[in-house]
Amino acid sequence: MNSINSVKLTELKKIEHSAGDIHKLLNSFEEDFKGFGEIYTSEIKMNSIKAWKFHKINDLNLVVIKGKVKFVFYDKSNFREIITCENKLERIFVPAKLWFGFKCLSNSTSLILSLSNKVHSEDEVLRKELKSITYCW
Amino acid sequence: MNSINSVKLTELKKIEHSAGDIHKLLNSFEEDFKGFGEIYTSEIKMNSIKAWKFHKINDLNLVVIKGKVKFVFYDKSNFREIITCENKLERIFVPAKLWFGFKCLSNSTSLILSLSNKVHSEDEVLRKELKSITYCW
Repeated sequence: MNSINSVKLTELKKIEHSAGDIHKLLNSFEEDFKGFGEIYTSEIKMNSIKAWKFHKINDLNLVVIKGKVKFVFYDKSNFREIITCENKLERIFVPAKLWFGFKCLSNSTSLILSLSNKVHSEDEVLRKELKSITYCW
Repeated sequence: MNSINSVKLTELKKIEHSAGDIHKLLNSFEEDFKGFGEIYTSEIKMNSIKAWKFHKINDLNLVVIKGKVKFVFYDKSNFREIITCENKLERIFVPAKLWFGFKCLSNSTSLILSLSNKVHSEDEVLRKELKSITYCW
């Protein structure tokens, strides 16, 4: 089991351009890059919660692309909350072996970009019902 | 120089979920995956155009995450247009050695996610002024 302190928040670099800025999400030289397995987006509808999930092996890098999201990490001792949104330009590194979930805080569907260092496998994921971990969302 | 026919459009897989769907953008087993160099987003403001650009080495995979965008590819013989939007759930594979540009077609800023197989280097990019290739945007 990893500690909630192993979750890492990194500010993204922005390259300004008159026709629209560029945001650098992750490159292969960065410490948070642990390999490329797959990339996907997760929608999260207004007021909805997706929780709880635990990856046995996969490390994730997450970026909120649209809307506002609260992430909650849990290491069986403590909770850690990270609230981020599309304008904040932050990346969250989530190591394997940590329970987490997230809730949409915006008035419309939010979108999270996830880069996993391994291709998805159900064998690698543990899940718990929302109510099985007592947390005030 | 690559041909405009080497640009490839792929429908993304969607996994439906009551709290918000998941869209699979790319995994390492797919033919279009050519390595991980970096991942970034490009904003493109309403009515704006970013053109023309040519990558000597880097292959790209592009997904429109927000809004609607027209991409134009040019191989010195022909133009190819691809119009896609956030609801279409498509990925565009753009091989190196091809001139291209794009224009925002939505009423607000669009957002394109780009995965490059190499880290960005200005040495690897050729650029031309918008007017230097005659095309009716």
